[in-house]
Amino acid sequence: MVDTAPVKSDLSAPATAEHPHRVVIVGGGFGGLYAAQSLGRSPVEVTLIDRRNFHLFQPLLYQVATGGLSPGDIASPLRSVLNRQQNTQVLLGEVRGLDPEAQMLTLRDGDTVPYDSLILATGSAHHYFGNDHWEAIAPSIKTIEDALEVRRRIFLAFEKAELEPDPDVRKSLLTFVIVGAGPTGVEMAGAIADLAFHTLKNDFRSVNTHETRIILVEGMDRVLPPFAPSLSERAAKDLKKLGVEIRINTFVTALEGEQVTFKTGDQIETIQSHNVLWAAGVRASSLGKVLSEKTGAPSDRAGRIMVEPDFSVPNHPNIFVIGDLAHYAHQGDSPLPGVAPVAMQGGQYVARVIRDRLKEKTTPSFSYKDSGSLAIIGRNSAVVDLNWTKLTGYPAWVVWALVHVMFLIEFDNKMIVMTQWMWNFFTRNQGARLITGRDQIKSNQAFMKQ
Amino acid sequence: MVDTAPVKSDLSAPATAEHPHRVVIVGGGFGGLYAAQSLGRSPVEVTLIDRRNFHLFQPLLYQVATGGLSPGDIASPLRSVLNRQQNTQVLLGEVRGLDPEAQMLTLRDGDTVPYDSLILATGSAHHYFGNDHWEAIAPSIKTIEDALEVRRRIFLAFEKAELEPDPDVRKSLLTFVIVGAGPTGVEMAGAIADLAFHTLKNDFRSVNTHETRIILVEGMDRVLPPFAPSLSERAAKDLKKLGVEIRINTFVTALEGEQVTFKTGDQIETIQSHNVLWAAGVRASSLGKVLSEKTGAPSDRAGRIMVEPDFSVPNHPNIFVIGDLAHYAHQGDSPLPGVAPVAMQGGQYVARVIRDRLKEKTTPSFSYKDSGSLAIIGRNSAVVDLNWTKLTGYPAWVVWALVHVMFLIEFDNKMIVMTQWMWNFFTRNQGARLITGRDQIKSNQAFMKQ
Repeated sequence: MVDTAPVKSDLSAPATAEHPHRVVIVGGGFGGLYAAQSLGRSPVEVTLIDRRNFHLFQPLLYQVATGGLSPGDIASPLRSVLNRQQNTQVLLGEVRGLDPEAQMLTLRDGDTVPYDSLILATGSAHHYFGNDHWEAIAPSIKTIEDALEVRRRIFLAFEKAELEPDPDVRKSLLTFVIVGAGPTGVEMAGAIADLAFHTLKNDFRSVNTHETRIILVEGMDRVLPPFAPSLSERAAKDLKKLGVEIRINTFVTALEGEQVTFKTGDQIETIQSHNVLWAAGVRASSLGKVLSEKTGAPSDRAGRIMVEPDFSVPNHPNIFVIGDLAHYAHQGDSPLPGVAPVAMQGGQYVARVIRDRLKEKTTPSFSYKDSGSLAIIGRNSAVVDLNWTKLTGYPAWVVWALVHVMFLIEFDNKMIVMTQWMWNFFTRNQGARLITGRDQIKSNQAFMKQ
Repeated sequence: MVDTAPVKSDLSAPATAEHPHRVVIVGGGFGGLYAAQSLGRSPVEVTLIDRRNFHLFQPLLYQVATGGLSPGDIASPLRSVLNRQQNTQVLLGEVRGLDPEAQMLTLRDGDTVPYDSLILATGSAHHYFGNDHWEAIAPSIKTIEDALEVRRRIFLAFEKAELEPDPDVRKSLLTFVIVGAGPTGVEMAGAIADLAFHTLKNDFRSVNTHETRIILVEGMDRVLPPFAPSLSERAAKDLKKLGVEIRINTFVTALEGEQVTFKTGDQIETIQSHNVLWAAGVRASSLGKVLSEKTGAPSDRAGRIMVEPDFSVPNHPNIFVIGDLAHYAHQGDSPLPGVAPVAMQGGQYVARVIRDRLKEKTTPSFSYKDSGSLAIIGRNSAVVDLNWTKLTGYPAWVVWALVHVMFLIEFDNKMIVMTQWMWNFFTRNQGARLITGRDQIKSNQAFMKQ
C-alpha cells in the first residue's frame, strides 16, 4: 500500500534509531541519478531532490536546439526512472541552504530535509567571464528552455531574412557566430551548417541559404582543445568541408546589439551577426558557494569543490560532491574532466562508499576508468579517441551514435531517437524545427520589427 | 537557382500581365494546407501566410498536454511540407488588415501582400462566453503553448500534492475539473484518468494517486453531444469505468481562485479544485470580424462567415473562407461541423474552383463526403461512427489510432507517434511528462508557495 502520510512530517522528523540511514542526493543529472540507482537495493532511505522533474540527457541537447529532436526525446521523468526503487523518494525543489551541524538542507520554500549522508551533484552553469550582460545577446545551451530559445532564434533568423529587403541586414541575419570550440561549440557549428546548406536549402524563395556564414571562435590554438592534436586537426578539416569558418587564438572582446568584436593577437575585427551563441565556459553551480561557506571546503577558480579521494568534503566525511561540481585531483596530472562518465562513475563510487560504511567495510580507492572521449562534427563525421585507438569520419560517427543511444536513460527514448535519426539521416529533414514559446506571436512580430 | 531578390518588392509589386494568378492562403491548418497542396502543380503563384512556422495536428494535441507525445511529434514545419512546390512561398506573418478593392492584405508589421484569389482559413479560438477572465484559471488547449502550460499544471499538481501536509489542499490539488464533454473534454478526462490511476500510480511516496478525482462537466444532457445517443451512452459508461465522474445538464457559474461553482437545474454545488481545464467552446478567429467589416459578409453567433455554396464570400467571388472560420449551410439541415475533414475537403474544393475559373470551366457543386466521426476515451476505448456502422471499445480504439496516424502530415511523425504509442501501450508509461517553461524554476517555486 502507498503511505499517505504527508511527507513533510517524515522529512522533518529527527533521526532516530528507527530510521534507516538517510541519503539525500541533490541533482538528478548523470552523477545524482547513477548514485540513486546504485543505492536502489541498499538498506538506506534515498531522497533525490531536483529543481526539475526530469533527467536531461545533455549530450544531445544541441539537437533540440537545432530542430533534430524534441525535448521529450532526451528527457526522462525522474519519478518514472526511479519508481521501482521502493526505498527512493523524489522531491521537486531547489536547495538553498545547508546546515552541516544539524545535517539539514533548506529548500527555497522553507521546508527542511534532514540527511545522514549527503551527495551534492548540481553540476555547472554557463559562464560569461564577468560579462553577464552578454547572456541576453548570446544564449548558452544548458537547459531545455535554453535549447528552445536558441532553436527559436535560429529558425526565426531565416524567416526574418526571407522578408528582409536590406542586403546588409540579411547578411547579418544569416551570420552565426559560435563562441567556444569545445564539443558543444563544434556540434552546434556542424549542426547549423547542416541545416543551412542541406535541410533548409529548398525551403526559402528569397533567401539563398548558401549565403549563410558560420563562424566558430576559439581562444586556444585549435578546435576541441581537450582532444588529441591529430583529432583536432581532423575536426577542423571536417568543419571547413561543412562550410564552417574557424578562428583560433581569438577572443570576443565586445558584444553589442548585432555587433561582435573579436581579437586575434593584435588584430581587431568586427562582424555583424544577429545570432551569437555561447559555448565558451562553465562554472560550478551556485550550491558550491553555499557548501564552501558552511564547511570551509576549498574551491577552484571555476567554483568547483576540491574533494578528498573518496569525493567527500574535507572534515565532513558524510558530505560528498560528484560530477561537474567536484574538482577531483587525485588521479593523473589534471583534475578529472567535466564529462558524463566521470559523473556516473563518481555517483556509483560514492554509493558504494556509503554502503560499505554501513557495513563497516573499507572501500578500495576510486579509479576513473576512462573509456575515451568523442565529439560529433556533423553528418557522417565525428572524432573518437578510445585511448587504444582513434577514429574519425564515418566510423567515428557510428560509434558516437551507438554510444549516445546506449546511454539514453529510457528504452522508449532510445527507440524514438533512433527512429528520428534514421529519418533525418536518409531525408536530411529535421522535423522538430518549431518556433515556439509563450507570447511567441508577439515576440515573432517584435523580432520582425527590429 | 534560388531567386535572391528580396521578397518584399515582389509582394508589393502591382499585379501585371506578367504575373501568374496569385493565390494567397491565410492559415496553415488542415484547410489552408490542403488548399496549398492542391494548388501545387497549378499555374498559379501560391503564398501561404501563417503566424506560426508549422502545421499543428490538433487532434493529438491533448496527448501533448498529458505527456504522451512531444510537440515536435505532431507539428510539421510548413516550409518542409511545401518545399517541393516550386510555385509556393511560405510567409511567417500575422494578417491584420484586408482591402478587398485593392486586393491587398496588410500584415502586422505593415508589409502588404497583394492577391488575385484569397483563401481565409484561420480557424477558431477558444471562447469563454463572456468570462474572459476565466482563461487564466481554466486554460484551453488550442496551441502548443497551451498544451505545454496544461501539461505543466497537471504534473505540478501531483508534485505539489506530494509535498502538501494539509489534506484539504491536497484533495484540491488532486481534483481535476474538465468543462465541456465534446471530443476534447472526453479525451482529456480519459487521459488524466489513465495518468492518475495507471501511469503515475507508483511514482509518488506520500500521494496515493487513486485519490484523484476527475470531474467532467457538460451543459447538454449527454457526453459527446454531436455523436449518436448510443455512442454517448457507451462513452459515459467507459469513462465511469476509467474513474471519471460525469455531470450532465451542468453549467459552470463561477470560477474563482481554486473554487468552481456548478449549477445543475436548481442545484448549486461548489468544489475545490486547483486544476480546471476548459474544453467548452470555440469562436471564429478574429480575422472573420475584419472580413465582415470590409466586405459586409454576414456571420453567425460564433463569428463564422456565412459562405456561398462555393465557399466564397457574398459579392466577393475571389475571397473564399474554409474550415472552422466558415459557416457552410448548403448541405443537410445544420451547418457543416468544425472538424478536420470538412476543412480538408473545403480546401481541396476551393483549389479546384480557382483552377477551373482560370480555365473558364464550371466546377460541380461541393458535396461533403462524411466518412464518420470518432473520439477516443482512453486506452482500448473509443467510439467510432462510420455512418454505415458503429464501433466501440477496442475495435473503435484501433480504428481511431490508424486514422490518426494515417492523417499525420509527415512520415517521420507517423513513425515516431506509432513507436511512442506502442511503448506507452505496453508499459503504460508516458515519457514526455516534463514540467517546462521559461522561468520554470521560479514559477515552480511560486506555485509551491501558493
